[in-house]
Parts: sequence; structure tokens; C-alpha cells
Amino acid sequence: MAEHTVKFDVAGEAIRVPTGTLLAEAAYQAGVEISQPCGGQGRCGRCALQVTSGPVRRRSTIRLSDEDLAQGFALACQTVIEGDITVSVPPQAKIERLLTSDRTVGEVTAPAGYDPLLDQTIQSVSLTLTRPDMSDQTDDWSRLLTALRQQAGIDQVQISLPLMQTLGYTLRQGEWEVTAILDMQAWDRLGQPPRLIDLHPGASLGMPPLWATAIDIGTTTVTVWLVDLITGDVRAQVAQYNRQIARGEDVVSRIIFAGKDGGGEQLRGMVLDTINELVDQACKRVKSDPPLTNHDIVKAVIVGNSTMIHLLLGIPPENIRTMPFITTVNQIPSLTAKDVGLNILPDATVDCLPGVASYVGADITAGVLSSGLDDLDKITLFMDVGTNGEIVLGSREWLVTCACSAGPAFEGAGVVHGMRATKGAIEDIWVNSETFEPTYRVIGGVKPQGICGSGLIALLAELFLTGAIDKAGNFKTSLNTPRIRQGEHGWEFVIAWAKEAGNNQDIVFTRVDIDNLLRAKAAIYAGFTVLAASVGIPLDWVEQVLIGGSFGKYINVEKAILIGLLPDLPWERFQFLGNTAVRGPYLSLLDRQAREKATEIASRMTYIELSADNTFYDAFMSALFLPHTDLSRFPTVEAAISN
Amino acid sequence: MAEHTVKFDVAGEAIRVPTGTLLAEAAYQAGVEISQPCGGQGRCGRCALQVTSGPVRRRSTIRLSDEDLAQGFALACQTVIEGDITVSVPPQAKIERLLTSDRTVGEVTAPAGYDPLLDQTIQSVSLTLTRPDMSDQTDDWSRLLTALRQQAGIDQVQISLPLMQTLGYTLRQGEWEVTAILDMQAWDRLGQPPRLIDLHPGASLGMPPLWATAIDIGTTTVTVWLVDLITGDVRAQVAQYNRQIARGEDVVSRIIFAGKDGGGEQLRGMVLDTINELVDQACKRVKSDPPLTNHDIVKAVIVGNSTMIHLLLGIPPENIRTMPFITTVNQIPSLTAKDVGLNILPDATVDCLPGVASYVGADITAGVLSSGLDDLDKITLFMDVGTNGEIVLGSREWLVTCACSAGPAFEGAGVVHGMRATKGAIEDIWVNSETFEPTYRVIGGVKPQGICGSGLIALLAELFLTGAIDKAGNFKTSLNTPRIRQGEHGWEFVIAWAKEAGNNQDIVFTRVDIDNLLRAKAAIYAGFTVLAASVGIPLDWVEQVLIGGSFGKYINVEKAILIGLLPDLPWERFQFLGNTAVRGPYLSLLDRQAREKATEIASRMTYIELSADNTFYDAFMSALFLPHTDLSRFPTVEAAISN
Repeated sequence: MAEHTVKFDVAGEAIRVPTGTLLAEAAYQAGVEISQPCGGQGRCGRCALQVTSGPVRRRSTIRLSDEDLAQGFALACQTVIEGDITVSVPPQAKIERLLTSDRTVGEVTAPAGYDPLLDQTIQSVSLTLTRPDMSDQTDDWSRLLTALRQQAGIDQVQISLPLMQTLGYTLRQGEWEVTAILDMQAWDRLGQPPRLIDLHPGASLGMPPLWATAIDIGTTTVTVWLVDLITGDVRAQVAQYNRQIARGEDVVSRIIFAGKDGGGEQLRGMVLDTINELVDQACKRVKSDPPLTNHDIVKAVIVGNSTMIHLLLGIPPENIRTMPFITTVNQIPSLTAKDVGLNILPDATVDCLPGVASYVGADITAGVLSSGLDDLDKITLFMDVGTNGEIVLGSREWLVTCACSAGPAFEGAGVVHGMRATKGAIEDIWVNSETFEPTYRVIGGVKPQGICGSGLIALLAELFLTGAIDKAGNFKTSLNTPRIRQGEHGWEFVIAWAKEAGNNQDIVFTRVDIDNLLRAKAAIYAGFTVLAASVGIPLDWVEQVLIGGSFGKYINVEKAILIGLLPDLPWERFQFLGNTAVRGPYLSLLDRQAREKATEIASRMTYIELSADNTFYDAFMSALFLPHTDLSRFPTVEAAISN
Repeated sequence: MAEHTVKFDVAGEAIRVPTGTLLAEAAYQAGVEISQPCGGQGRCGRCALQVTSGPVRRRSTIRLSDEDLAQGFALACQTVIEGDITVSVPPQAKIERLLTSDRTVGEVTAPAGYDPLLDQTIQSVSLTLTRPDMSDQTDDWSRLLTALRQQAGIDQVQISLPLMQTLGYTLRQGEWEVTAILDMQAWDRLGQPPRLIDLHPGASLGMPPLWATAIDIGTTTVTVWLVDLITGDVRAQVAQYNRQIARGEDVVSRIIFAGKDGGGEQLRGMVLDTINELVDQACKRVKSDPPLTNHDIVKAVIVGNSTMIHLLLGIPPENIRTMPFITTVNQIPSLTAKDVGLNILPDATVDCLPGVASYVGADITAGVLSSGLDDLDKITLFMDVGTNGEIVLGSREWLVTCACSAGPAFEGAGVVHGMRATKGAIEDIWVNSETFEPTYRVIGGVKPQGICGSGLIALLAELFLTGAIDKAGNFKTSLNTPRIRQGEHGWEFVIAWAKEAGNNQDIVFTRVDIDNLLRAKAAIYAGFTVLAASVGIPLDWVEQVLIGGSFGKYINVEKAILIGLLPDLPWERFQFLGNTAVRGPYLSLLDRQAREKATEIASRMTYIELSADNTFYDAFMSALFLPHTDLSRFPTVEAAISN
């Protein structure tokens, strides 16, 4: 087959590819990072590149104007190479808004009464072996087994081949004294022998340090906690965008991308890179001598939605997306770091907490575990709004759950000037009811660059309350303010003028943004309605609302009720829990009983498939208004707007 | 560091190496196969290459004459590169005497009463899963577990991540009917859940074929049997030289080579290549439609001496060689093909039978198992003479064992015209007591190329009987025959003249050869003596002698007694068992009880370390004569020579 030379202006070397190669594939091979938020479906237009010379064939030109085409623009995901070409990569708003840490990271310390010897599955033992001589030629491994039996009461042990390969060296290096690190019990190996996960030369004085990591793989953000298993404290918390974002911003786009040739492996590599970098970062944050390295980490517990977990493990997620929405596995057998590709101790146990269904993953199991919902007497609603919105309703007696495809609007995605809750984001806003001039608060106290989820909720509520938009989200265009104007995407509200903005452009909130937010909040509220109806209770029987996820941490309950995102309950019933997802693996790391509880929770939850529920569509349509078609459901809002 | 270009006349591309690189290493990198029988110690001189231009530094020039040096010859293992060089690889007797099969391969069929359903650990089950729909969104893995529980009574199952990765595809491909292959019980996982090793789409009609392999890794020869687990029959038997021979002919040379940088990995790769090629060959021999492939093989059981097993598994064997001679592991945990690097089904169980000590390996455990020695009432001597000689003495009541470093003389190595028992080898010989003219029998009925072990024993016996050599092995130089002459290596006997030989050169038997054979037979006989003494019985209480190993198959007992290799017992007490080593894994493959017995045998055997036994040296020295210093131990020989 003919080969062609492809030269990208931003890459060093030209590359050679066969005729018919997708431009996106060539970019990938050349190491040119291009954004494919729609997963390479040709829908979003974000992967447009400029072909400055040479022949290509465009399969689709959607979102490209005639002028664009004249200038050589082509969608990388829809264009094949048919000759030697040169390509220019236009500057674009790259998704590299890396977080070095979450906005406010609280210190997390071990639960009261934590005892590593009783609660931990990871144990270390110091052993003194008998030295071999001509009268005792016992092999090294038997010698170690004897010491484990006699000195630690451990009868049988499993060992990996790589550890066996270094055994002879380690024993002699330590002059027949060694410290063995064992995983005494994986969740799915009850009654089976412990597993030797590491062996250090020399006995240790007292308990040697033992490190582990709790990981939450969000569709948008990956969070890693580094845990000292001896004290039980979290010693470093780091977070970063999931690198997979470049291949699709929501799970559906990722699943589609995974279905392409090599797509699954690419996504797997991207999330592994993200995690491995975070682990390195976390290790660097801990002061210790000698410095902590990733190979000191002997266990990882991971959560994420079902798609994220499938992608991490290289399991094709395709059936998650298509009816009847089936995961390959919810209760993942325990694995090792080497199996998974995590760059920590190769024999470290890697435990993925169990999910419930295609769209209610381990992150929700973890949320229920860390919120304690499954042990409460009160009827409680738990919600975790990330890129999707998952809801659990229940108590000690029963648990029902569902997933609402809310989309990433509340994470700032799909909104023109949306951004994550990081430095430069408007996090709260007030609009003057007469002048329509806004006052806002920016994270970090700097000039605003955009607006995050809590800011969007506040803005929507304020515009509604002041009458700048009506209950359907339409702008009142007759108001005497320059802030409501016709923009590129229709009517819009100017939040900040270019001169006040950190990026020297007007920060606006468009009609399209409003529609995205309305759909997102309607999906979530409809989820509440269907769950409550499924167990035959009215929504206001809910005695407590627990809000997990980084989304929930800073929203204003009053304003969230005003727009109809949260049910109209007394404010004191709401409680914010922060990142409940990563707290689940953290608790599971510390306490084997917590881990058992996670399995129990996942199997106890009854999953309601909204797309199969014939009341969901009506509930969703009714909730597309501010706050809702049926105002009687929102008595406090009715009172506020009638003032 | 400076780099130099190295060009070998036999290799395509020149390579670049840093200054100071060993010539042997450069050859390896360039893909030039050179022989290093001594393991790269600079002792044998077999790796000499001719440096035709450029600077090198010779660390040692042992075995090179001044003339050699003048012509540029250098030992590859002792010479470092100091500039751009060109190298000529002289033609040499390459070790590529590949066997396509053993000389006489008997058909091996299953033991009477073999029942795969009862005796096998490998089982296959056909399952019909419920189809998912919107009212049953159970994940694929739970669905499979339910089917296993309800349709096969299997409660819990272990699965590897790669198999989980293809699970969703396989279930849908088979339209929710699948055939699961399970290993119900590894020897070291009693009471633990079965392991899923493969999953095929579609139910199978009746029992699907199941294939396994029994492997014996000899220092010299690797033997592979391909076994049909349903019938229990051996369907192909193949054997080939162990490729590691190029890096040392005995275990000590291999251990030394393994200690060099990257040496262990090189040896590991070589034996894996050997095995993987043999498995491919074996698959091709079986007629089946569709053709059998290596991925159809679901289990392997392996034996070999302890060094061979350590090298196979990448475990450094260095402590086997140095006092106090310690292996890293004798009872190898069960592994998978992927762990080991065997190119069969990746999740196939790989079970290495247990060894006893550094020089009594799993091949001897296998020999005892397949000979049934451990269950006999009679006092029995079992011997397996390969590159080393291992001996077991015992009965149902007790078992003692030792290893004699006999060297590879009886395999034809270390003997000028020695060769393996393959086509062209003289396998038996008679010498006329007056003319000293020999008559011989050649394997394959062709012209002779050399002489194999059984031929060497016969020749030594004949020369001794006819008085051509004395009891110390010295030639009687006064005889009237041109066949006893001064050769390159001292006195020698011409077995065949160049004109009768297949390779157009005189085939000779030298004084040095005789010394090698005397040392080998003395080591073995001294082993008998020490073992018998260790349990306090005279050697002639031995009621039965079982001879295993391919060596034993064709030797003439009378002549072996004549030279003092075997004890002077009535001939009917001797029995040849053929390759008992490979039969051990074969039996273990077929019957889980046989596998348990192997573990029991290994732990029952009492190992006598000859080098720590102060009677061994005396016994060895006394046995260096023909047949022995103490003629009263060999009454039949005494009678024969006094005639």
C-alpha cells in the first residue's frame, strides 16, 4: 500500500502513514494532541485542523463553513490522507486546565479507634530465618514458609513469580532477616491463604511504614489520596483532569471512541497515565527520608463509574451504551498493580469497589458507604452530581437507585464560559433586580475567567428571580440593560465585560447554556420523582438529603431549589459531604469490614432503569421549567416569585 | 561513551556498541549464534572468532596459539571491543544436531481405567445463560457465575483480567451459550475455587477436545509430549536439543553464564524458544480439523533438574552451585503459561513437579513416580543418567537419594567423537580379541558419524576384555594393530577409518575420552556405594535396578557391569524404563492423585549430599578402575577376565 509523509507544524519529525489513514490517527502517531470531545464522531467540530498542502478526502464537513473549507480546514476524525500533506494545528482552547489540588482540601485523619493490626488486611512481619548449611539444605522458599509459620502463625502463603525470582537475593541481602508484607485477605478470597506482596531485606524495628492509595476515577476529574496505613491518615490529596477528556467529554463519547480500532487501549493508557502521574505527585508531597516512591505503595482501592472502571481494566464498555445496557462485570475480582498497569508495587493488591449497574457505578456504592446511608433510620436521599447525576433513596431497610443523564453542564462543560471550580471561576453571583448589574465572587480572588457549577446555579436563579428570564428560560429582551444582547449564539447575558475579565473577553451566559442547564436539572429532579414513586412515597417524606461529589460542595441550596434542581425541603435537611466517592475506597483501605459492607451495599441496591420507566419522560418534561411546571411542588419558590 | 561499529561477515547489518563491549555480547546483539560450552568462562576455546580489522583487547588468550593470534583469532567471551571492527565467524561444528524425534518412540496410551471426568483437574462445561433484557440487567460475569452454579454446581470461580476482557464478546458471539474450561484444583490450592482458563462461544456437543503437554527439560535434550486429556493418550512425542547448550554443556556452565549481565534472561529465552518450537511441532503432528494450535493446550506439567527449572522460571540459580548448594524453591507454586512465557493458552495452568535438592530435581521425583518405586516391597535402586547421574535407593518404607556429577560423557559430550543416540551414531560395538578389528552397529544403518553412550560403554568394555587397555585405562601400545596409534590428543583407538565414516574422517576413541568415561562411571558407582552404606545395607541386597532416562534405554547390562558402571547383580534384576522423567508429568496430567503423590515422594526422599560425605571420595577413587579396585565386588567380571 502506498505510504505518505505527514508533517504537522507543531511536531518535530514528519511521519509516514499508509494511504487512507485517518488524520486523527496520524496526529496521534505524531504525538500531536488534538481534542475529540465527541469521541471522534464528527459531531463537535473541535478537532478541525488546517491542511496547508496535499490531498485529503473529507468524509464529513459538518460544522465547517465554505470559508473554512477554502482555507483547508478538515475534521481530523473524518478526514483520510491520500498523499503527502502538511498540516497546521490551530491554537485552540486546549483542555489542559490541570488542577494541582482541589479548591479546599480538608485534612482527613483516621476514624477514631483505627488499629492497623486489627482493621488492616495489609500486615508486615519481621522474620529471622535459619541459615542454610551442608547439614540443612532446605530451599529458600521452604525456609521462609517455616519462619512465617513459626514466627507469625501463617500456615500458607501465595507468591508471584517475580517475587520468587528475587527471593534468594533478598534473603541473603538481609542475612536471613527479612520483613514480609502480606495481604491477609482480599475481599473475594475469604478463607484463602494470604498473599506475599513484598519482601524487604532486614528486619524492621517496630512497624515499618505502609502506604496505600484511594483513587476516584471521575469522567472529568481523577482524585488520588495517599494513605499512611499505620496511622490511617490521608497524607496527600491530589486531583487532575482525566486525560481521556481529549477523546470525549462524557461517558457515551468515550464508549464510542473505545469502539474504534485501538481506541480502548488509547483510553486505557490515558487514564493510567493520569493516575500514575497523580501517584507520583502525591508521593512527592510527603516528606520522608528516604523519599517515598510509587513502589512503596502496597495497595490501591479504586472507584469510578462503570465505564471508567471498564476502560481502566481494558474491558470493552460497548454494551454499557446499547440496550439493554449491560456491564461486563460489577464485582471486579481483586487484581494486582501489574495486572492493571498501575505504577506502584507490582504485586500490590488493586481492589475496584463494586458497582451496581451500567450507570450506577462503584462511585455511588462508595458514596453510600461513606455517607452511612445504608445504616440510617431516616429516609434519606443521596445524590452525586458529576458528569452524570446518580441518586440513591433509602434507609437501613431498603435502597433504590437510578442514574440521570444530566450531562456535564454543572461541571462547567457544555456551557460557553463554563469551567471547573478552580482559580478564576465565578462561584457565586447576585444580580440587581433593577439595574441587572451583577456582583460576583471569584475563586482565588482574581479576575474571572469563566463560571463554575455553583455560579451557574446562582446565575440561573438570579436571572429568574429578577425577571431577566422567564420560567421557560427565555431572555426578557426589552429590559433596559446592555448586558442582555444578541450574541454569536443568540440572546445572551454579559456576566463580566472584557476589561474586568482575566482573559480579556466578555464572559457571557447564552440561551443555549440555559437550555443545557435546564435539561440537566430536569433530568436530576425527574430522577428524584421516579425513585420516590417507585417506593410509593411523596418526595417531601425525605428526611435528609446528602449531597456528595465535588459539585455539591459549594452550591447554594436556596438557589438550587429556586431553579428546581433540588426538591423544596427545609434547608436544614440538606447536608454536603464533599467527595464521598474517594472516601469510600479510603474507608475500605482502612477497614476490612468497610470493604465487606461495600459488597453488601452494591448487592442491596435496587436499580431503576429510567429509560425503561414510562413515568420518567413525563417527569422530565414537567421539570424543564423554572422551577417546575407544577408550582405546588415548590411552595417556597412560589412565595418568593410572587413577592 | 564512545561507540564503535561491529560488522560480522555472517550477519546482515553492522551494529553499534559502546567501547568495552564484550565481543560475545556484540555477537548476540547482531544475532550471530556462537557456541559457549563453558558458559563464557574462557576455558573451552569454542567461541574463538577472527577479528579481521580494528582494535580489540584480549583479556585471556588461553587455548589460542601464537599463530591463531597472528591471524586475529580472539575468544569472544574474553575480548572487548575498542574501535570499529570487522569479524569473521569461522565455520565450526555447530550444535544444531536437531532431533526430530527420539530414536524409537513407542506409543503411549492412557493407563487402564482412565476416566477424564473423575481423574482430571481440567473440566469443560457447556452452559446456557439467560439473555439480558431491560428487566434483567445483571452483568455478564454474574450471569456466567449463576449458570456455573445452577448448571455445573460450581459456586465460585477465579478469572484472569484478559479473560474478563473478552467475556462480553464471547457471551454474545455464542448467543449466550458457552463452553467453559476450568482447572478445578491446582496442587497447591486445595479447597480454593476453580480457575476459569478459557471460554469458547457456543455449547459443545459432547465433551470438547482438551489438550495438554508433558515437558521434560533436560540439560541436553528437551522432550515434549502432547496429550489428549479426553482419551488420556499421548498423541505426539517430540524432542530437540536444549538451545541453552550453546551457552554451556552442563548445569555448572549454565549457572555461571546465568550470573553474567543478562545471562539469565538469555538462557530463559533459549529454553522457552526450544519448548515453544517443540509444542508447535507436536501440534502439527496431530491430524485434526480445524488444525490444532498451541492455544488449544490448556495445561502443562514440567519436570527438569533444579537448575533447568530455575532458569525456565527466571529464578537465579547461582546458589545451587556454591556451598551449601541451596535452591530458591523446590515446590513451585502453580503458575500460568503467561507467567512462565510458554506459548500455549495464556491462562493454561503450568505445574512444575517438585524437586528434592539442588542436584536431585523434579526429573527424579518424576522418575520415582513413574517407576512406582515408592510403592514397591523390594529394595530397589533407581537411576537416571543424563548429563548428571541421580540415584534413588528405597522401597515403600524409605527412600534415599543422591546426585553424582558424572558429567555428560554418556550423552556423547566431552568425548571427541561422541554424539547423541541419533542417526549415524555407533550404538554397539565388538572388538576382535586377536585382530582388534571392530564390528559395530550404527543407528539408522548409515555410515557412522560418531559414537553414542551405549557404544562408548560397549567399546570400553571390549577394549578392556580384549586387553587393548588395562584396568587403569592405558592403551597397550605394543599390540600389532594400526588402530592403536598416537593421535593429536595422545594415544587413541581408531573405531572407523575415514573411508567408512559418514563424515570422511577417522572416528577415534582417545585416552582423554577414556578418562572422562572412567570418572563418569566412578562417580555413579560411588553414589551407589554411599547410598547403600547410608542405610546400612550391602549393595547386593538390591533386589531390583530400574534404569530411567534415554541413556539407559539401550545399554548392554553385561558390558556396563564389565566396566563397573552398574553393580554386579544378576541381569534379570535390571529393568529399563525409558524416559521416566517425561512420564511423571504425563501421569500427573492425567490423574490428580498422581500429582499429590509427586509432592509426597519429593518430601519423603532423604537427600545425601555426596560432597559432604566423607566416604564418597574414597568410594570414587576406588571406582576409577576397570571395573573397580576391589575385584571381589565384581565376581562375574573377575571370572570373565580370568578366562
